[in-house]
Amino acid sequence: MKAVVFRDPGTRVEVAEVDLAAPKAGEVRVKIAAAGVCHSDLHVKRGEWVAPAPMIMGHEGSGVVVELGAGVTSLAVGDHVVLSWVPPCGECRYCLQGHEARCQKVATVVAPQGVLFDGTSRLSRDGEELHHYLGVSSFAEEVVVPASGAIKVRDDAPLDVIAVVGCAVATGVGAVLNTAAVEPGATVAVIGCGGVGLNVVQGAKLAGAERIVAIDVVPEKTRMALQFGATDRIDASERDAVEQLFELIPDGVDYAFDAIGRTATTEQSIRMLGLGGAAVVVGLPPTGAKASFEPLVLAEADQRILGSNYGSVRPSIDIPALVDRYMDGQLKLDPLISGRRPLDDAAEALDDLEAGGVLRTLLIP
Amino acid sequence: MKAVVFRDPGTRVEVAEVDLAAPKAGEVRVKIAAAGVCHSDLHVKRGEWVAPAPMIMGHEGSGVVVELGAGVTSLAVGDHVVLSWVPPCGECRYCLQGHEARCQKVATVVAPQGVLFDGTSRLSRDGEELHHYLGVSSFAEEVVVPASGAIKVRDDAPLDVIAVVGCAVATGVGAVLNTAAVEPGATVAVIGCGGVGLNVVQGAKLAGAERIVAIDVVPEKTRMALQFGATDRIDASERDAVEQLFELIPDGVDYAFDAIGRTATTEQSIRMLGLGGAAVVVGLPPTGAKASFEPLVLAEADQRILGSNYGSVRPSIDIPALVDRYMDGQLKLDPLISGRRPLDDAAEALDDLEAGGVLRTLLIP
Repeated sequence: MKAVVFRDPGTRVEVAEVDLAAPKAGEVRVKIAAAGVCHSDLHVKRGEWVAPAPMIMGHEGSGVVVELGAGVTSLAVGDHVVLSWVPPCGECRYCLQGHEARCQKVATVVAPQGVLFDGTSRLSRDGEELHHYLGVSSFAEEVVVPASGAIKVRDDAPLDVIAVVGCAVATGVGAVLNTAAVEPGATVAVIGCGGVGLNVVQGAKLAGAERIVAIDVVPEKTRMALQFGATDRIDASERDAVEQLFELIPDGVDYAFDAIGRTATTEQSIRMLGLGGAAVVVGLPPTGAKASFEPLVLAEADQRILGSNYGSVRPSIDIPALVDRYMDGQLKLDPLISGRRPLDDAAEALDDLEAGGVLRTLLIP
Repeated sequence: MKAVVFRDPGTRVEVAEVDLAAPKAGEVRVKIAAAGVCHSDLHVKRGEWVAPAPMIMGHEGSGVVVELGAGVTSLAVGDHVVLSWVPPCGECRYCLQGHEARCQKVATVVAPQGVLFDGTSRLSRDGEELHHYLGVSSFAEEVVVPASGAIKVRDDAPLDVIAVVGCAVATGVGAVLNTAAVEPGATVAVIGCGGVGLNVVQGAKLAGAERIVAIDVVPEKTRMALQFGATDRIDASERDAVEQLFELIPDGVDYAFDAIGRTATTEQSIRMLGLGGAAVVVGLPPTGAKASFEPLVLAEADQRILGSNYGSVRPSIDIPALVDRYMDGQLKLDPLISGRRPLDDAAEALDDLEAGGVLRTLLIP
């Protein structure tokens, strides 16, 4: 089958014919309908994150189940699924506590080693083993994933569009509803109004936040955020965003989400907080980057800094619910999709993302 | 009346005759039974924290109500009370949400300005106004405080001993039960086994933690922590505490409390966390000190950094409950008290605390 191979940081990805082995016990094969191109893919391509290589890229996607491995009873051939880049093992103490986004087997085996649960890969090229990316590798015609990573959703949802639920939407909306648990009437700041940031904005609207301040250096992005539910805009290219925020909301905000993930924006999010406020790290910086805070201020103001992995979601519960909310008109997905390209254009799609100005490009095999 | 005056950072405090005005509406006068000498007092004396001066020191204490201001119905003359250095206003949005430790009026008026709710002081000396410290000023024969800062407790509790509930115990135990909400079976690390750290240890025991690792550079302190419920000890004077922690608990801990408040210990607490873990800032550093963390690690591991102000307590509910737990034998208070001294020895008591080796000295007017 055709798939997008990443080999060395800094080089262009390559579309090639690769081999996909049959699903083993507990796994399924899925024919990909669409795969979204995400900033995380770009981080890997640039070498800012360590990822096992060579590998097949992509961690966001949707498709149809075409083959079941032994023992899989939760899915059937023909099921529409959204892929989850945390396929919970269901057995570790974190899964048993309901904190599936913290799954220990995913964090220690699947993600860092680029393999499935049994420690091996289903991907190869001319006999050379290729790694999976985050247990997904959706830049391909088909994938083999753990059954817990293929989340059955309703059949009437447009299968290509809902690909974005698997990463951008789950991450952004989940950070609001799960990680932070924003309550009605809260005040919220969102730094960065790209694919994830816009989902934080619409998550805050769903949560019933009273003020939602959209912050970006690109005015078109904050204008777009107004359509997603933002009540105020800050143009961070003009002058200090923190200063502007306190002009709008003198007491500071209850929640500040950093959907960029630079040291400067993470530190800004912390400085925007009022009494009891929580800063949420959603956007991810390069490995080794550090941010600082004043422990005295954090303690005296009873504030919090929350890391949010994959929106702290429980994939099997949250992903179908997010698809339902889209179908009910409570979540916008279509404006998040900048365009569709064939799989052959993967390198160009990554170039476009790097150049800025696009949200999600869907690769259609 | 006799009271302990602090005038300039770095100088010794002075015991002097000062004037105490009658309680205004909503305030009460309390005859002090005992006042604990805390590291916060030392921070102020050294000039590491900014506090309005000249002032009467002390923010931990207990006593008996001797006079009611107009309109006070929640207390009666003769009531035994523990003083709270957060006297909740009951009207701000944080109090109304039940987050009394974040009371906005305390954070913006009472604490920073060194006054009571109406913006004035009841303390003076030869016509010179003296400030209150954190709405308490317990290093004195008597205090006038807001009624919400004098918490009625049972009459059969030893009135001098329970003074320490007002700061050390509320802060340490509250950080575990309220701020972090440690659950049964959790793994906990506690850096610093002084007055607050030992209360974190016994709070973790109350919460049902499975492992409680006591960490200090002074071996006698971690040995004492074993009596308070610690299951393991780390001698941080030998070698890196984080390295030793991971030898004991290879996955890292669910909760790490920094009860010291130095940049190094705060950063260590963050590095001790496992998946989904929470670092809690309990000990307070000097103004302006910064600590750093890796946002990528915090997010990927779904971790949290929690500031804890006054153990996130609701004083009127939590303080009587803590006194009950002491009387029921669930909390140890007596071993926290290193000794008792007359008010005249306040300067020496602060010297002793600075020299190390003492937990709480009670000043007895």
